Amino acid sequence: MSYCFGIDIGGTTVKCGLFTTEGVLLEKWEIKTRTEENGKAILPDVAETILKKMEEKGIEKTEVTGVGVGVPGPVVKEREVQVAVNLHWGYTMLADDLEKLLDQIPVKVGNDANVAALGEMWKGGGEGTKNLIMATLGTGVGGGIIVDGKIVTGAHGAGGEIGHAFVEPEETESCNCGNKGCLEQLASATGIVRIGKKIMAENTAETKLHLDNFSAKTIFDAYKEGDSVAKQIVDKFAEYLGTALAVFTCVVDPEVIVIGGGVSKAGQPLIDAVAGYYKEHAFISCKDTPIVLAKLDNDAGIYGAAKLVVA
Amino acid sequence: MSYCFGIDIGGTTVKCGLFTTEGVLLEKWEIKTRTEENGKAILPDVAETILKKMEEKGIEKTEVTGVGVGVPGPVVKEREVQVAVNLHWGYTMLADDLEKLLDQIPVKVGNDANVAALGEMWKGGGEGTKNLIMATLGTGVGGGIIVDGKIVTGAHGAGGEIGHAFVEPEETESCNCGNKGCLEQLASATGIVRIGKKIMAENTAETKLHLDNFSAKTIFDAYKEGDSVAKQIVDKFAEYLGTALAVFTCVVDPEVIVIGGGVSKAGQPLIDAVAGYYKEHAFISCKDTPIVLAKLDNDAGIYGAAKLVVA
Repeated sequence: MSYCFGIDIGGTTVKCGLFTTEGVLLEKWEIKTRTEENGKAILPDVAETILKKMEEKGIEKTEVTGVGVGVPGPVVKEREVQVAVNLHWGYTMLADDLEKLLDQIPVKVGNDANVAALGEMWKGGGEGTKNLIMATLGTGVGGGIIVDGKIVTGAHGAGGEIGHAFVEPEETESCNCGNKGCLEQLASATGIVRIGKKIMAENTAETKLHLDNFSAKTIFDAYKEGDSVAKQIVDKFAEYLGTALAVFTCVVDPEVIVIGGGVSKAGQPLIDAVAGYYKEHAFISCKDTPIVLAKLDNDAGIYGAAKLVVA
Repeated sequence: MSYCFGIDIGGTTVKCGLFTTEGVLLEKWEIKTRTEENGKAILPDVAETILKKMEEKGIEKTEVTGVGVGVPGPVVKEREVQVAVNLHWGYTMLADDLEKLLDQIPVKVGNDANVAALGEMWKGGGEGTKNLIMATLGTGVGGGIIVDGKIVTGAHGAGGEIGHAFVEPEETESCNCGNKGCLEQLASATGIVRIGKKIMAENTAETKLHLDNFSAKTIFDAYKEGDSVAKQIVDKFAEYLGTALAVFTCVVDPEVIVIGGGVSKAGQPLIDAVAGYYKEHAFISCKDTPIVLAKLDNDAGIYGAAKLVVA
C-alpha cells in the first residue's frame, strides 16, 4: 500500500490527513498551531505528528510517497514560503526543513487557497477534471487556478488571486490589499453585507431583513423565502461574481468552476443566481461551463496538499 | 544539426520558416493558401513545400525534430482543428493528415494567436520567460496565455480569448461574438476608432484629428504630438486595456505582458499609457510586472509554431 499525508497549516490549527495515494482519506486529525517565537515549533510539531501516526499505523517510510503541505502565504517552486503572516513566519525553506525532520520523506508545498482548488479537482466538485477555477467565498475571496492538473502559482505566487480583480470603479473604500474596487470587497461574506447595507439604506419596501442581524446567511435565508430586498442584494452580489468569473474564463477556459467557502453554504440558489450573470457575459465557447459547489468543505486543504505529492 | 519547421496558415498566405531547434530562423518564405474546395489542397501544399525545402537544403528526415503548425481556429490536444472558417475547414485531423503526407515527421498544431504568444516567449518580447500574457491588438483583440512554457488551450480551445472579456456594461453595439461590451470592441484598431468618434462628437477643443482620416495610426500620431483630444482618446483606450490586463494577471500572474498586433506599432507611448492604468489596478504583487512590445511582428507565428515541436 502507498500512503501520503496532506497537511493544512492554518493560523489556529494544523489539519492533518493520512491518505492512500488513490485519494482515500484514512484518518484525519488536528493539532494546535503554535505561532509563538516566530512559529518555530510548527514544523517540528508537524513532523512529530506524522512520525507518530506512521508508528501507530505500522507504516514504513518506504510506503510513504510524500507529505504535501498547504500554507497561508505565497509559495515558490513548491518548496519555499515567501512569508506567512498568520504563522509568524518570514521566508521559510519549508520543504528542506521538513524533509530533514522526516528523514528525507519528500515534501511539497502549496498556497492554501491554491491547494484547496487542487483538492476539489481531485476528489471534490471538480473530480474528473484537470482544468478548473475555484473561488472561495469567505471573509475575503480566495482562488485557485488549475491548468492541466497543476496549480498555476504565477511569477509572484499571485496566481489565482481573483479576489483582487478590479470590478467596481465607483468603490470608495480601500481593500486590504490597498486597491479599491476588488472583487473581494463585494463578493465575499463581508462584501454581500456591504452591498446589503447600501441597498437597505435606500430601501422603502417591506423586508424580513434587519440590520441588527445581517449576514451572508440571513440575506440568503431571506432570499430563499422570496424576500424582494434580499433578491436585490443577492442579484447585485451575483452580478459581480458571475461577471468576474466570465472574464476569468476568457483567460484559462476551465472545464468547471467550483464555488466554495462559507458563503457557498447558501447552496444551489447562490449558484443559480451567479450562473445567470456568468452565462450572459461569458465567451460563447464557455457559456455552458458548469458552475458547481465545492464538496470537501474544510477538508479541501488536506486533500489538495496530499495531491501535491501524488503524480 | 537539428531542424524544425514553423508553419503559420492564414486565410491568404501560408508563412513558412525553417529553424534550427535552438530557434535560429534559417529561411522564411510564403506560399498561397488555396481555400477552394474546402481548403483540401492546403495540407498537401504545406507538405510539398516542406519536402522541397528539405531536398533543396539536403536535410534528412532524421534531422527534422518536427513541424509545428498554427491555424486560425480552436485546436484540440495539439493535433486536431475544430473548425477554421478562413481556411474553409470543418473538423480536421491536421496532425494525422500532415504526418501521413510527411512520411511520419511529427506534427503539432496550435491556435494562431496562442502560437504567436509562444513565439514571443521563445525569441520575442518575452524571451527568457515561461509565463506570459500576450495581447494582440489588431482589427480585433487576440490573446495567448503561456504557463510554465506551455500554451493554455483551455477546455474549449478558448484559453487566451481575452478579446472577449466583458469590460463595458454600457456598450450598446454587439461584438462579433454576440456579446456586448467585449474588450475587443474598445481596445483594438477598430475599438480606438469607436472610442475616438464618440469623443470627437462631443469635442469642442481644437484638434489635429479629422474624421475623414481617422485610424489608430492617426490618433496615436496626434497623441505623440501632444494633441489634447487624441490624449483623451488614447487615455480611454489605455484605461480599458490596462484595467483588463490587471484583472487577467490576478488569474495567472505572468512574468511579462507582451503587446503585439498592428496597434502596437504606436510603440512605447502606447505601452506607457497602458502601464499607468495597469499599475493602478493590478494586485500588489503584480504591479511591477513588465509590459513590453512584441518583437517578432508577423514572424511570431512561425517562431511559435516551430517552438511547438521543440522541448
